[in-house]
Amino acid sequence: MAAERALTERLARFFPQGPRTLVGIGDDAAVLDGRHRRLVACCDPVVAGVHFTPAAPPALVGRKAVNRNLSDLAAMGAVPDWLLVSLVLPHRLPRARLDALLRGVRAAAAAAGAAVVGGDVATHDGPLVVTVTALGHLPGRALTRAGARAGDTIHVTGPLGGALAGHHLRFRPALREGVWLARQRAVHAAIDVSDGLALDLATLLRHSGGLGAELDAAAVPIRAAARRLAGGDRRRALGRAFGDGEDHVLLWTQAAGAALAPGGPLTARARRAIGRVAAEPGLWLRHGDRRTRLAAAGYEHDVPGPG
Amino acid sequence: MAAERALTERLARFFPQGPRTLVGIGDDAAVLDGRHRRLVACCDPVVAGVHFTPAAPPALVGRKAVNRNLSDLAAMGAVPDWLLVSLVLPHRLPRARLDALLRGVRAAAAAAGAAVVGGDVATHDGPLVVTVTALGHLPGRALTRAGARAGDTIHVTGPLGGALAGHHLRFRPALREGVWLARQRAVHAAIDVSDGLALDLATLLRHSGGLGAELDAAAVPIRAAARRLAGGDRRRALGRAFGDGEDHVLLWTQAAGAALAPGGPLTARARRAIGRVAAEPGLWLRHGDRRTRLAAAGYEHDVPGPG
Repeated sequence: MAAERALTERLARFFPQGPRTLVGIGDDAAVLDGRHRRLVACCDPVVAGVHFTPAAPPALVGRKAVNRNLSDLAAMGAVPDWLLVSLVLPHRLPRARLDALLRGVRAAAAAAGAAVVGGDVATHDGPLVVTVTALGHLPGRALTRAGARAGDTIHVTGPLGGALAGHHLRFRPALREGVWLARQRAVHAAIDVSDGLALDLATLLRHSGGLGAELDAAAVPIRAAARRLAGGDRRRALGRAFGDGEDHVLLWTQAAGAALAPGGPLTARARRAIGRVAAEPGLWLRHGDRRTRLAAAGYEHDVPGPG
Repeated sequence: MAAERALTERLARFFPQGPRTLVGIGDDAAVLDGRHRRLVACCDPVVAGVHFTPAAPPALVGRKAVNRNLSDLAAMGAVPDWLLVSLVLPHRLPRARLDALLRGVRAAAAAAGAAVVGGDVATHDGPLVVTVTALGHLPGRALTRAGARAGDTIHVTGPLGGALAGHHLRFRPALREGVWLARQRAVHAAIDVSDGLALDLATLLRHSGGLGAELDAAAVPIRAAARRLAGGDRRRALGRAFGDGEDHVLLWTQAAGAALAPGGPLTARARRAIGRVAAEPGLWLRHGDRRTRLAAAGYEHDVPGPG
């Protein structure tokens, strides 16, 4: 039996079969017991040279490939059930690196209670590409990007900026927070902050019918790495919080003045607003009495534009 | 609004929203009405330089990326519902080529009655990688690789070999055949022939408890392109039928002597056996009175082997 077959059989042993998995790794497709009517699905790749550097430990690359999809599920208020993992490997990838990658995938899946149920392996003359599809279900309503209203306060589950110093490989998807937020009636819309606070907030506002927002410069929580990378310069650190991306915290809006239920997974910090949704389009940043225009800029792939 | 956002919004308009899609392209994840309890899921990439050449028309690349996943669903007896499409694009891919690729994806999805409900776009300094995840449901039982029995006859839905001459980009997934075969009680096991008849038959036999098979050289249907590539040499054409791969026909086994229901999507040719399952492991090829050993060889990616 040649190497690819051997690897597929190894994967079938490596990844524990989850509950509700009728046919797992090794057949043409997985068969899953979808007892929940509302299925949630997303699919994002990580690519060497784009989403991680050659120096990134492969176990953390596997972890990131899973967790960035789980963060998308979290932003919908979904619970993960199953993962499919497509690996496009560079020729001559050392076995130890592949094994570490797979261990990272398995650990992240296990931490979230999800089972790896299928996927594919190919090799090519190019960079490592790990594409994970995450499937889950909704215990309550779906938390979309489309429900924000003028006057809502804006919140984030954690600090922002400087993720490339390490957080982007090690973050924990806010799964408990997403499910909990979906249960709060006062919460109107949510998004996974992956491309930067400014850009993802702008996306949420556009999906909510073309609203705007004003953020409070003093209230935006800044990750320690962003302050460090900014050499202690508060303005530059704030720029990083707005534009660096890969934070994978949840941003949500809620009815002004509404109190969320006590308890739950949110920090006290996350319950404090960082800004407010406005009826007029445009992003503004308030510094005390001044306010300045904030560009909706962040990480974007240079895809072919409109013709 | 920058190019990546613009593309995402364009995709949301480009791909028609399917029925049973509660939240489609444009949010963190898709929300799908999974009214069928048994969900079927698979995920396979196509990579430039591996699964297609730079000369392949991009519309056919998009079509292949979808159809090779639909062929996996077909082999389970599943009906496709939804697709997720992850695009990793080379920098400076011309807009016209991207558009043609997307039209190929959309046409293949529409032909199968499936809706594109999500995915992702990234760019990198490397080859085009299109990873499609296909989700479907089972109208009847799941047709796995694991049910073949000694004495079963072996069948294929279409001719084999020479797929790289064009068939690999243009094949039609055997979806109607898969659902129909799953309804026939006499059918015991099935597999999508993607790596070549010999290798995929060996896989099915291994999954069925370590059985073997004897194929009849005169009965194996050979694609015209394989005969042409073999310069009319019957032996070489047969070698191509066994080893070329990318045929994406279904191979199945059924109880010896059992008649399948009349009518349905099978050709008369497909109802005739090409061989028989044996209790002893090993693949054999019968030419009249002689029989020779057949290697379980075909297309395999050169992945890191067991350490």
